[in-house]
Amino acid sequence: MVFHDLRDYLKELDKKGLLRTVDRPTKIETELMPLVRVQFRGMPESQRTGFLFTNVHNSKGRKFDARVCTAVLSSSMDIYATGMECKPDEVPDRFTFGISHPIEPKLVGSGKCQEVVISGEDLEKHGLMDIPFPVEIPGYSCQVRTTTAFVTKDPETGVQNAGTYSGQVFGPRKILWEIHRGSHGFTHLKKAAERGKTMDAAIVIGGPPYVQYTAAAKVPYGMDEFAVAGGIAGEPIEVVRCKTVDLVVPATAEYIIEGRVSVEDFEQQTPFGEYTGYVAADVESQWCPVMEVTAVTHRKDSPIFQTIISQMPPSESSKLRQVAYGSAFTKFLKDDCGLPGIRKVAFHESSGSWQYCVIQLKKTGPTDAMRALVCASGYASDIGKVIIAVDEDIDPFDPDSVNWALSFRMQPHRDIQIIRGKSAHLDPSAANPGEETGPKGYLESSALLLDATRKTDYPPTSLPKREYMENALKIWKELGFPEPVMKNPWYGYDLEKWTSEYDRYSKMVLHGDHFQIGKELEKKRIKMNILEK
Amino acid sequence: MVFHDLRDYLKELDKKGLLRTVDRPTKIETELMPLVRVQFRGMPESQRTGFLFTNVHNSKGRKFDARVCTAVLSSSMDIYATGMECKPDEVPDRFTFGISHPIEPKLVGSGKCQEVVISGEDLEKHGLMDIPFPVEIPGYSCQVRTTTAFVTKDPETGVQNAGTYSGQVFGPRKILWEIHRGSHGFTHLKKAAERGKTMDAAIVIGGPPYVQYTAAAKVPYGMDEFAVAGGIAGEPIEVVRCKTVDLVVPATAEYIIEGRVSVEDFEQQTPFGEYTGYVAADVESQWCPVMEVTAVTHRKDSPIFQTIISQMPPSESSKLRQVAYGSAFTKFLKDDCGLPGIRKVAFHESSGSWQYCVIQLKKTGPTDAMRALVCASGYASDIGKVIIAVDEDIDPFDPDSVNWALSFRMQPHRDIQIIRGKSAHLDPSAANPGEETGPKGYLESSALLLDATRKTDYPPTSLPKREYMENALKIWKELGFPEPVMKNPWYGYDLEKWTSEYDRYSKMVLHGDHFQIGKELEKKRIKMNILEK
Repeated sequence: MVFHDLRDYLKELDKKGLLRTVDRPTKIETELMPLVRVQFRGMPESQRTGFLFTNVHNSKGRKFDARVCTAVLSSSMDIYATGMECKPDEVPDRFTFGISHPIEPKLVGSGKCQEVVISGEDLEKHGLMDIPFPVEIPGYSCQVRTTTAFVTKDPETGVQNAGTYSGQVFGPRKILWEIHRGSHGFTHLKKAAERGKTMDAAIVIGGPPYVQYTAAAKVPYGMDEFAVAGGIAGEPIEVVRCKTVDLVVPATAEYIIEGRVSVEDFEQQTPFGEYTGYVAADVESQWCPVMEVTAVTHRKDSPIFQTIISQMPPSESSKLRQVAYGSAFTKFLKDDCGLPGIRKVAFHESSGSWQYCVIQLKKTGPTDAMRALVCASGYASDIGKVIIAVDEDIDPFDPDSVNWALSFRMQPHRDIQIIRGKSAHLDPSAANPGEETGPKGYLESSALLLDATRKTDYPPTSLPKREYMENALKIWKELGFPEPVMKNPWYGYDLEKWTSEYDRYSKMVLHGDHFQIGKELEKKRIKMNILEK
Repeated sequence: MVFHDLRDYLKELDKKGLLRTVDRPTKIETELMPLVRVQFRGMPESQRTGFLFTNVHNSKGRKFDARVCTAVLSSSMDIYATGMECKPDEVPDRFTFGISHPIEPKLVGSGKCQEVVISGEDLEKHGLMDIPFPVEIPGYSCQVRTTTAFVTKDPETGVQNAGTYSGQVFGPRKILWEIHRGSHGFTHLKKAAERGKTMDAAIVIGGPPYVQYTAAAKVPYGMDEFAVAGGIAGEPIEVVRCKTVDLVVPATAEYIIEGRVSVEDFEQQTPFGEYTGYVAADVESQWCPVMEVTAVTHRKDSPIFQTIISQMPPSESSKLRQVAYGSAFTKFLKDDCGLPGIRKVAFHESSGSWQYCVIQLKKTGPTDAMRALVCASGYASDIGKVIIAVDEDIDPFDPDSVNWALSFRMQPHRDIQIIRGKSAHLDPSAANPGEETGPKGYLESSALLLDATRKTDYPPTSLPKREYMENALKIWKELGFPEPVMKNPWYGYDLEKWTSEYDRYSKMVLHGDHFQIGKELEKKRIKMNILEK
């Protein structure tokens, strides 16, 4: 089954118990996002769902016809896999497949996203003010915004780009585009500046899930994300021409905001909650290009404003990054760096899926682990502050499992290295006065590499052997105890060090013959003088 | 209420929903411990309970009259606090109180622990073989054993010591005492060796909970643990004289195993599961003194064999150590090292509550955090491999919270140090060939100190302010969603960096006045040439 629009997808989430629909009147400034946030600070990943709010109003008492949904794309791997129509384990590969098998979008004559069209002077009365933008972190948010696919076009090649950028809504016809200097979108803006005064843009809200996943991933420059989305869907994404700008957009989207971004008019950034867990408050010197909105189009029947919930991790955005970076780093280390033993690369959501990274590998030689760590650290100047290598029997996503490896498989004086000369991405710890090194404005950041793999022979893990734990799980169930979620390792296994003599002893113990062992030990009894120095 | 015996205490646990009673026939070699282990590898701490098995048999088909209980002392902080009769937060202070307010035990004429007495030749037919010793890690255990209070006496001062040591059962009258060379018990054995051939000993199984907690804690040498236990209980522990050795033991215990430990006859250690998560398999050169059992006494009515579940952390033993070390280190850093800002010292159970240690503090100056780290590392040669300092707003027990601090409050090139010259306690990572340094047999271990406190001004955390989160929790409850367990931080708060201007903006956003902010921004609009280098 292919999801042709957001509504198809929400139905499927609901069927699977992965959507909470809130019909209660909900205030968009103070109630909506805090309620969704409860699940990210209070629920384990296995119990997280998307949210659909059907009855929203604002602080001025206005009730909206429109609905709001958030957390529907990637609040858990189960949700993510539902949107990608695969098993949770297969999500990373679905991207690679979409990139290597793109399907060009199909242009159609009309689309539901244009059932209602508001443009020109009408925008002073309708349009942006009819959209129920929720306040993300009430008390600290200094803006409301969209955080979905922002579509622009390379004026040279004509190829469109759809990236996840924020559009800050500051007037009935004004949106500030939060765009950083190295992005694909900004490259388009510079090319537009060589040719004129503005650049066409369109914000897509609530397209089919594939479009959102692709816009949030790192797709190579010059590839149309809609084509990659088609590759994942297995059929072309249907698109329509915009009403006032020269772009195409998914025909079944909930909302499209069309407009022209100025190449020279800039307004000041205001604080907002960042994925790091902090507010971006050093924003006086950050300037956003002004987008003049030329049209708002939308579906007729109670359109759904969809947005990604980010800020304090874990969140929808940290899960998106966890998957995107995990698959990119795995591919890089395995294929490009020639480390075939790489199994998984786990970015921890607690670090915004940015700073804390665990590489699981099967070593083929003593230098594999450190090489993997060094290569991972070199992949990007601003990704990865604590990078840890672990063996195959460690769950790289489980912080307790990783800390167990750090505790008994790593020696600081032997197994760690510091890599200097990295750069900081929104990381307040790099801002210490006196720490600035090198060129003006460059704040040095560094990486800590820890090899927590086994370097010598290890005894078995101290747990009952697998057969006894499997039997115990059956008894546990039979007794009606609450469903367990087993953490690795959950049964004992040999590593390098175990003898046939001990194997024999352990079997005697299972048969209740420990007194027999006692007799064998007695034959080897020794006399010892404990007072001797 | 004071628990006068184990049975009083188990009743209270049951009343609180903290005991699972298993009446199903359970085999002690292969079923009992694996079933309890499911909860430690599969249940969150909040859902852990103690276990009482009322219907046990062995692999030879023998059904026991006796019962078995385990995990009843410290499988969770709720259980621990129940046994100590306080709130979870107050547990560490209860020890300190017991040590500073000891109450001498009260000798009574008879006790339930001696309702049945087996001694002499009778021990060949009854006694140890009637006790249902469960196999701890079937498939790897090469012994069965007791892990409870082992009582000995200083022959010079006459003061008793009760420490948690293992007694390995290898014959109807033979127990091997697992004792390491630096312990209080071994000091007694050496003093006994100066005077004769044997030392009296008694193993207490299933006393009042205070006795077990005290035996597992680090009580200063020369203090009678029974007196400290009395201090915690608030009344003297009643004791009786042993039948065949010169010691006193708790009158209400379930079992007492009396005997004489040889000062010169030693037998070889066999492998067993260690608290590190590995089997202790390098045991050929480890020798245990032989204890000749002289009597087994017990209660008449279906006595309960109680044992601490240890091995792979988390376990009952890692929680005992977490509390004991946490309070000892807090006291040391705060009082003895003069660091009044110390709040909590959290040993992570994933490290066996030994290697991974997080110190939460309120800094009074820029050097406090590193000084706390260095002092903590110096406290014991073999405790603490990864030691991390965090601020007051970080939950030191939550690995995600600590990793968040490491991600955005620490710079490896500036904030870490390695301490060499530590020693390894059962840590296989220290055994790498070629790594031996210094005196023969010394395997160097080291510590990694990480200062993850804020060193400069930070912006607010990116979460809704407290009032909105509190309101959201009410709505969450009202909607009947599953009970959340909120992790810190769960609401936004200011740190050092926030302006009154931004505060004004954020309030305007709450009132739906973002278009007003847009007008203010417009006044400060600038022209920018993005093509300029």
